[in-house]
Amino acid sequence: MTLELPAVEDIDDAALAARLQHLLDHKTKPLGALGRLEALGLRLGLVLGSEAPALSAPQMLVCAGDHGLAARGVSAYPSDVTWQMVENFLAGGAAVSVLARQHGLALTVVDCGVRHDFEAREGLRVRKIAPGTADASAGPAMSRAQCEEAVGHGMALVRELPGNALLLGEMGIGNSSAASLLLARLAGLDIDLCTGSGTGLDAAGLARKRGLLREVLALHSDAGSALAALAAFGGFEIATLVGAVLQAAEERRVIVVDGFIAGAAVLVATCLRPHVVQRCVAAHESAEPGHRLLLEALGLEPLLKLGLRLGEGSGAALAWPLLESACRIVREMASFESAGVSQREG
Amino acid sequence: MTLELPAVEDIDDAALAARLQHLLDHKTKPLGALGRLEALGLRLGLVLGSEAPALSAPQMLVCAGDHGLAARGVSAYPSDVTWQMVENFLAGGAAVSVLARQHGLALTVVDCGVRHDFEAREGLRVRKIAPGTADASAGPAMSRAQCEEAVGHGMALVRELPGNALLLGEMGIGNSSAASLLLARLAGLDIDLCTGSGTGLDAAGLARKRGLLREVLALHSDAGSALAALAAFGGFEIATLVGAVLQAAEERRVIVVDGFIAGAAVLVATCLRPHVVQRCVAAHESAEPGHRLLLEALGLEPLLKLGLRLGEGSGAALAWPLLESACRIVREMASFESAGVSQREG
Repeated sequence: MTLELPAVEDIDDAALAARLQHLLDHKTKPLGALGRLEALGLRLGLVLGSEAPALSAPQMLVCAGDHGLAARGVSAYPSDVTWQMVENFLAGGAAVSVLARQHGLALTVVDCGVRHDFEAREGLRVRKIAPGTADASAGPAMSRAQCEEAVGHGMALVRELPGNALLLGEMGIGNSSAASLLLARLAGLDIDLCTGSGTGLDAAGLARKRGLLREVLALHSDAGSALAALAAFGGFEIATLVGAVLQAAEERRVIVVDGFIAGAAVLVATCLRPHVVQRCVAAHESAEPGHRLLLEALGLEPLLKLGLRLGEGSGAALAWPLLESACRIVREMASFESAGVSQREG
Repeated sequence: MTLELPAVEDIDDAALAARLQHLLDHKTKPLGALGRLEALGLRLGLVLGSEAPALSAPQMLVCAGDHGLAARGVSAYPSDVTWQMVENFLAGGAAVSVLARQHGLALTVVDCGVRHDFEAREGLRVRKIAPGTADASAGPAMSRAQCEEAVGHGMALVRELPGNALLLGEMGIGNSSAASLLLARLAGLDIDLCTGSGTGLDAAGLARKRGLLREVLALHSDAGSALAALAAFGGFEIATLVGAVLQAAEERRVIVVDGFIAGAAVLVATCLRPHVVQRCVAAHESAEPGHRLLLEALGLEPLLKLGLRLGEGSGAALAWPLLESACRIVREMASFESAGVSQREG
């Protein structure tokens, strides 16, 4: 392969971890009383390499692409919704637009392979490989060259973005199918367990989707490696996110993982560079049943569990203030000594 | 009794509920895809009586008081920590100070009955009934007159505060015991199930606490009504919160419930005025085991579950951005029609 992937080093700094834990343990609160927020503060301190972790210029990267498999009826919505939602992101009317505005997240939308020609404008990057992937039930969704090109785009995009935190978003009618296939192949799970209703298939639609995905998985039984599976199942937006994740991980940015599809991109990236997951925070556990399995495969515990199943990066945006809080707890809370508060008895 | 409690009307506006649901169902997302955020948006719209709900000037009210029962060793910390933490709140070093600053929540700390004389300053209201309650294992924690005075203080405090949202916080060494006793009595539950380690008792300490609380409960077996139980078990900060909750409910402010102790105040208020709970949002489920039972008794589903067990209002502050998000979703997201996005097929 021609693409050179970033090195992602092991964050193995026991001294810093001990200093952060000491800081947390001496804040004015009972030991461990801020629960998972404390573990989050420790992780963010380690990723950012600081005893005073501060998140700066957070970037919401929403990658969009169409899927040839969508023509086989794996989604409740027509493929045109992909480009229409890209327009909605840019116009500020989508959930992720609203939430990014609320939290001051810079929103970048990427056409990774949407079946539509967009007019250039602020906030949109066109990194189109093709107008949608090929039908994965007939052959590979993308060629190996297309796959590598998309991964390279993701790497280059992140290099151009400022800040030390990347939030992952996506849009692509049919892309929960690609995520299910990647999860089944790379985690060695039964495809039925990995497959859900996506944007809202009924029971009959879900049964058809499961049958079709089983066929697709069998057709590409030789696609065992992470990049081979990615090329076989697609999509362009997932491949672009894989590159973005790898680049962000190399630069030790904090990576906020959204839902099932963004998580599948992280799974691919983790197969390529295992230490990627050290930089990741799982924003939420979605209602899509495979997401729980995906989080388990990654070893990540979600912050929120609100029954979300929208994608776009909406869950990542909703969880964002918790990351800010965790950093502020580490930086700003007083210690027992500094505040003159008595320690526990006995 | 001399105290007149506010009337809290039933929010029974099926027409507004239908309009809010229609708005949510036509936003550019699959039906229900924002999960519990949609139910939250609906509830906030109903409480605020608006199809465009907007939260304004949110008030974090932290009520503090000491407990005579603390001398019996029900807490891992000495009573002096109550006043020391009040100083810490005011100096900006406590968790709730940090989180209130992050989210622009106005912080008011109330001395409801701390065993310490504070110097007057910005952000502190002195509404002290006495320097700590009496020992509930020897007699009632407060007289009926003291109890009513504290409830009246809470009502008056909220009347003086601007805005349409109240976040509940508290501080008081020993107050998880009072909350356990109130829950056991008012929800008719076994005291052992309602009693946990609080700020961090060990197993032997927890066993002692349970034995003592069983005695206290038996001593006050005649304290069956909400106000009688409140007077019997305390504390001044809980009684002040009860008044604050009732007043906020009458004014149809959104009430953000923090953890176990703030929840116990809401339980008392709900026994007095059942429709109070319609205005309440449960911020989180804490690690204190009785909290799950308390939330079930109130019929509230928590937004966060992060293993918090700090109190102060810290959980309410952490959940606050989700309430903001829910309102913005209702107000700012585009509809399928307005954004020109295709509806689902079939």
